[in-house]
Amino acid sequence: MEGEIYNISVMKIYFAGSITGGRDDSQLYLEIIKLLKKYGDVLTEHIGNDSLTQMGEKISDKEIYQRDISWVSESDVLVAEVTHPSFGVGIEIARATEFKKKVICIYRDKEGRRLSAMISGCPGIEVFKYQEIEELKEIFLKEL
Amino acid sequence: MEGEIYNISVMKIYFAGSITGGRDDSQLYLEIIKLLKKYGDVLTEHIGNDSLTQMGEKISDKEIYQRDISWVSESDVLVAEVTHPSFGVGIEIARATEFKKKVICIYRDKEGRRLSAMISGCPGIEVFKYQEIEELKEIFLKEL
Repeated sequence: MEGEIYNISVMKIYFAGSITGGRDDSQLYLEIIKLLKKYGDVLTEHIGNDSLTQMGEKISDKEIYQRDISWVSESDVLVAEVTHPSFGVGIEIARATEFKKKVICIYRDKEGRRLSAMISGCPGIEVFKYQEIEELKEIFLKEL
Repeated sequence: MEGEIYNISVMKIYFAGSITGGRDDSQLYLEIIKLLKKYGDVLTEHIGNDSLTQMGEKISDKEIYQRDISWVSESDVLVAEVTHPSFGVGIEIARATEFKKKVICIYRDKEGRRLSAMISGCPGIEVFKYQEIEELKEIFLKEL
């Protein structure tokens, strides 16, 4: 007699944050990743890695692109921290909507600036403003 | 007798530049648009408009998104100035590659920074470095 096979599926989360522009926020990114890990596997833990410099990673640009887009396509949900403008995060968000993934953008409001209309006006993206990490707990609990 | 119908097709060019981050470059954007107009219709002339503030345009975000993406889909080529990080430009570039458009990125190199791997590593995108507007004339002549 064969045993039953359990299909335990763990949610795959793609966390996107600005690498070149957001290194000041690497500690915040680490805390966000820690929160997200309560809900599933975070495919992009390296985003919170302090040793990632403004000059980026040590594999080729093509390899970075292929790896990241394949992670986006594997993921169940993309969570993007969109306080700092970033081409990479913009491209990842666009691909995630192209692949019909759930997309959640979190954003710290700053006076005199507003979030790009290409994010807030894009169908399939939900945007949440926050100031403190505590507020994210509630957002993730509802959305993930 | 009916006259002949001439199908005169003019190249449609989508010019993308950072609105919120690149207002210091609005004069440069105007000069680039002027160069591009020698090759076809520039669908996004408003990007070079000085009166566009950091707070953006006066139509709704959804309308901006729909208008811009429909222009990307109508265009024959997307030319993006990618010196300043921008979510919007990232999303426009991603959509243009999704729609199999020709994509040309132009970029002023700055010490200690490099272009996002998600642009330089993305298939279907050609990146050209430049410092002076004069250098763009040669690039556009070859590429458009």
